[in-house]
Amino acid sequence: MNLNPKQVAEILAEKDNIVILTHFHPDGDTLGSAVALLRALRSMGKKVNFINNDPIHPKYAYLWKGLKKQKFKEQYIVAVDIATEELLGDSLKEQYSGKIELAIDHHPSNTLFAKQTCLEGDSAAAAEIVYYVIKELGVEIDAAIASCIYTGISTDTGCFKFRNTTARTFYIAGIMKDLGADTERINEVMFETKTRGELELERLMLEGMEYYYDNKLAIAVIRQEMYRQTGTTEDECEYIASIPRQVAGVFVGVTIRERKNGMWKASVRTKPPLDASAICMNFGGGGHENAAGCNFDGTLEEFKEKLVKIVGEIPV
Amino acid sequence: MNLNPKQVAEILAEKDNIVILTHFHPDGDTLGSAVALLRALRSMGKKVNFINNDPIHPKYAYLWKGLKKQKFKEQYIVAVDIATEELLGDSLKEQYSGKIELAIDHHPSNTLFAKQTCLEGDSAAAAEIVYYVIKELGVEIDAAIASCIYTGISTDTGCFKFRNTTARTFYIAGIMKDLGADTERINEVMFETKTRGELELERLMLEGMEYYYDNKLAIAVIRQEMYRQTGTTEDECEYIASIPRQVAGVFVGVTIRERKNGMWKASVRTKPPLDASAICMNFGGGGHENAAGCNFDGTLEEFKEKLVKIVGEIPV
Repeated sequence: MNLNPKQVAEILAEKDNIVILTHFHPDGDTLGSAVALLRALRSMGKKVNFINNDPIHPKYAYLWKGLKKQKFKEQYIVAVDIATEELLGDSLKEQYSGKIELAIDHHPSNTLFAKQTCLEGDSAAAAEIVYYVIKELGVEIDAAIASCIYTGISTDTGCFKFRNTTARTFYIAGIMKDLGADTERINEVMFETKTRGELELERLMLEGMEYYYDNKLAIAVIRQEMYRQTGTTEDECEYIASIPRQVAGVFVGVTIRERKNGMWKASVRTKPPLDASAICMNFGGGGHENAAGCNFDGTLEEFKEKLVKIVGEIPV
Repeated sequence: MNLNPKQVAEILAEKDNIVILTHFHPDGDTLGSAVALLRALRSMGKKVNFINNDPIHPKYAYLWKGLKKQKFKEQYIVAVDIATEELLGDSLKEQYSGKIELAIDHHPSNTLFAKQTCLEGDSAAAAEIVYYVIKELGVEIDAAIASCIYTGISTDTGCFKFRNTTARTFYIAGIMKDLGADTERINEVMFETKTRGELELERLMLEGMEYYYDNKLAIAVIRQEMYRQTGTTEDECEYIASIPRQVAGVFVGVTIRERKNGMWKASVRTKPPLDASAICMNFGGGGHENAAGCNFDGTLEEFKEKLVKIVGEIPV
């Protein structure tokens, strides 16, 4: 049985000594959701911590400003924005697998690994669901909670640009703004800041961008050497996979990245009517209609040649 | 006396054979506002056209899909999103100066050039005001009108990132989404599309970016030759002035552009507490606290040297 936010609130109201888990490589939604819920539950006098498998990027530090870890014997484990136990990361998975009481999530692919689950696949962000849970808890949403919820919503929608954005997403963002969310600072940190290394990597990537079929296909290649040269890591540069498709006229934008093991990984982004997952299936990969991925263990030249041929055969 | 949207609606309800003027170099807000109002007034059986001084970028064509110019003898002239008669552009100014009956605008700098004005300086976009006018007209907002209003709001706020975004901005965006605005397509066209030339220009700009004082100051230079090489124009590349400040740690981001006459123009963007207009005042320029500009008619080297010295003397 899928719980709704009211039922989640009723359950949480009865619990104490709560630990909230975030997913590995924590992003704005898992962190914003976790800390919003933590702040709300602590304001009710409960003991609550949140924990994570991996180091958190310092840009998120404002979320828990003024908060300290509490000491208590944990009694109730909640997961937010986590679709499978694998996404806990190795160390959290080892510690908590099978022990998670409640999951609050918006991924339709959630495996129902928790004992109870509140899954709303239509929510743009887990933070939308957390907003309704906090409302049902009867807690007053202060500016700090509002900033956490706004962070989850804005980061998971690419600042309201992605397709998951609904009318409700805008309404909740408006309410958070009204309640004091520091949207200006959050937007600047999340969407208007790049490191010098990231900009350098973009430059190197643009330098080598290749276009085929009158711009229908654009291919960018990122080599391990380029991360070293710019002081960046593959993780933090995930966003650059969206650049090739941004070019006017491009229907298939591909970013090929060299793995540490010498293999190649491609991120394929398409515009309708072209199907990214169909392209990636040729290489044993898959994904969504407009965003998919695949791996290749031959040479870069073989990979590109095959890819160019496949895309050439698809009519636009 | 400043009109409110209800009064504007009462006036417009009495008029017919209406011409709506947009500002020169038309953007998403002046066009979205004009066409939303046009569609609403035509649905009441009125004859309405909109006109503009300059060619409109084809990316905006969806706004007036299905509409045709109407033939009538113009009786009532309305300006939307226009702060001064200069911003009409030369040819519209010559034709309409002194003849504009009504201005609907959100620029606090509006010179009250029209016979009557509805000025709401707190609105993120003129389209927000137009939304309230259409509501007061009693017209049902269909998907086409909703897309026009969403276009005005989203483009004037940089997709809800800029400081002018208010809670009301989010609420209206949510209502437009509910009423059928094609936000996915609009976001893709407005915020996820660059020309190949624009990306090339970005690359050349990044190649020459110079950093001073441990990244406190970043300077990029754009020469006329670079526009030629990439097939771009200064106009369409206005957005790149925001790139140098985006770098983490940079407090002053400067884009120096070569003018056609060989002079230099700098766009200065700062992060608090640094004051962009104070920096530009050293060169006889000015602007806002975080975005200002100035001109220089010496050599590029003299310009940079003076600028680097001035910024070096400002404590962060």
